[in-house]
Amino acid sequence: MQILILGAAGMVGRKLTERLIGDGRVNGQPITRMILHDVVEPQTPQAPFEIAALTSDFSLAGEADKLVANRPDLIFHLAAIVSGEAEADLDKGYRINLDGTRYLFDAIRHIGDGYCPRLVFTSSIAVFGAPFPEAIGDDFFLTPLTSYGTQKAIGELLLSDYTRRGFFDGVGIRLPTICVRPGKPNKAASGFFSGIIREPLSGQEAVLPVPEDVRHAHASPRSAVGFLMHAATIDKARIGPRRNLTMPSVSVTVAEQIDALRHIAGDKVAARIRREPDPNIMQMVAGWPRRFDASRAESLGFKAEKSFDEIIRLHIDDELGGKIAN
Amino acid sequence: MQILILGAAGMVGRKLTERLIGDGRVNGQPITRMILHDVVEPQTPQAPFEIAALTSDFSLAGEADKLVANRPDLIFHLAAIVSGEAEADLDKGYRINLDGTRYLFDAIRHIGDGYCPRLVFTSSIAVFGAPFPEAIGDDFFLTPLTSYGTQKAIGELLLSDYTRRGFFDGVGIRLPTICVRPGKPNKAASGFFSGIIREPLSGQEAVLPVPEDVRHAHASPRSAVGFLMHAATIDKARIGPRRNLTMPSVSVTVAEQIDALRHIAGDKVAARIRREPDPNIMQMVAGWPRRFDASRAESLGFKAEKSFDEIIRLHIDDELGGKIAN
Repeated sequence: MQILILGAAGMVGRKLTERLIGDGRVNGQPITRMILHDVVEPQTPQAPFEIAALTSDFSLAGEADKLVANRPDLIFHLAAIVSGEAEADLDKGYRINLDGTRYLFDAIRHIGDGYCPRLVFTSSIAVFGAPFPEAIGDDFFLTPLTSYGTQKAIGELLLSDYTRRGFFDGVGIRLPTICVRPGKPNKAASGFFSGIIREPLSGQEAVLPVPEDVRHAHASPRSAVGFLMHAATIDKARIGPRRNLTMPSVSVTVAEQIDALRHIAGDKVAARIRREPDPNIMQMVAGWPRRFDASRAESLGFKAEKSFDEIIRLHIDDELGGKIAN
Repeated sequence: MQILILGAAGMVGRKLTERLIGDGRVNGQPITRMILHDVVEPQTPQAPFEIAALTSDFSLAGEADKLVANRPDLIFHLAAIVSGEAEADLDKGYRINLDGTRYLFDAIRHIGDGYCPRLVFTSSIAVFGAPFPEAIGDDFFLTPLTSYGTQKAIGELLLSDYTRRGFFDGVGIRLPTICVRPGKPNKAASGFFSGIIREPLSGQEAVLPVPEDVRHAHASPRSAVGFLMHAATIDKARIGPRRNLTMPSVSVTVAEQIDALRHIAGDKVAARIRREPDPNIMQMVAGWPRRFDASRAESLGFKAEKSFDEIIRLHIDDELGGKIAN
């Protein structure tokens, strides 16, 4: 089995790569080759099979065709300009998130000849925009309030149409905010949800730009990789024609996040959060979802954490070697 | 006030043009100039103001810029490849319905300098796909089952995002099936809904390709023009951020359509319908909506007919000079 990952240099891409190397197989089939693609060169870890790293801008005509020329059996499309940047640079966001996605989908289509890979696309809960019900169900409409959310919603529509036409076998998964995100902050406007946990646990100050009553939906990086693997392997007959799924998540307020941090790491760590309201971020976040009823994904076997405590403990185990900076 | 109509040579475009010439003003402002655009040359009727007819393919780079260069105050974007053709020719459908729409929206954006016209976009109930509830409400999700519906749904998303960013003041209206459509059949898969009324009333045989229990949602051409005019003039503060609206319609089965025809025109006319099931059309229609709860549009003052009898009588009055072919 050949696997292609677009956006392989990103946090989720790297963790997915590790997981695939560790597993060595997908759905019982041994992995024979992996292609890691990104706009910056992805690291190529050691593996018992061939790993090729490719660097290019897949939103340029012809680049996507090169990526699929060897007919990968499984494609993870994780590449995207994140929300904050897509809002700040309209042309870049549409070019990568819409045109790039379309070039990829068309590159697969143009191979023809019965080629029909499983394609897993990471969409986002940013496809939803306020006002919405207290819990957003599986048939609630998409009213994105950011250009990023708009571009992801368009990607979902294209994925459905191309799957319906038989060009590939697509599964779109709407990731909740991934928390706790390891490493440095990225340009996502949602970055503070991780920052207020990650920085204090490492002995650093974090900025909280929104009020503590802001409620939001989270899943750990480990869950994100789990969602991707499940989307890669689930029987397509079980999914049916509606190929885009809201993933399960833990819904908590910022106050509950901070309570969990205090509970696990103590007052001194929790005191490293500095309140500094940012009207721009507050306005964006006000339009974001707070809670989901992800019944369809749950019935299909997608699993997230059950509490924010669990999310913090996973971060301490997976990223900090079990140690908290006191 | 300057007005631009894209898709002006189509049936709705021609009727809208007539209505605008008859009214002479929009929202109390006198019309000073109209630009009628289509891929085939639109007719230029007599009018007490300047009318320019332009012919081009607006999905070619640069063409849309020419259309908006004179900063029309009001733009009607009616241009589209219809459902049957967009399904048969994937590239053409995406090129016109997606790329063309995007070129138009970007052309408006690139003018900048405070230019922010009202833009009325005709979307379609094809943005919805089965299974759905008995009546589709205003917050039901978009799951198109055709490429045409996919392209219209993408147009809606782009319209919302560009409106939110202040590039134009967009209103998307989801037209139900327009019935009775005058003139020759077009390539829309929904064409038979009009054909089974129009042809018998003109003394000709019509083909019915689906069973009589098929239920669907209709509005007259006169209502379609009414929707467009209302969308052009409604106060934007009343619409709010959700700029795409399902229009009101009359929900009837094909059997009820035929009953209304028989009731108005007699058995002999109704006998001109020949049953000839077409599996392709049956499959497409099976995924189409049957009934809407268009509460939002109704509360905003959009109005359709109340019965299918009324729809037939309007056709006889507006298109047949009050006469039925016995």
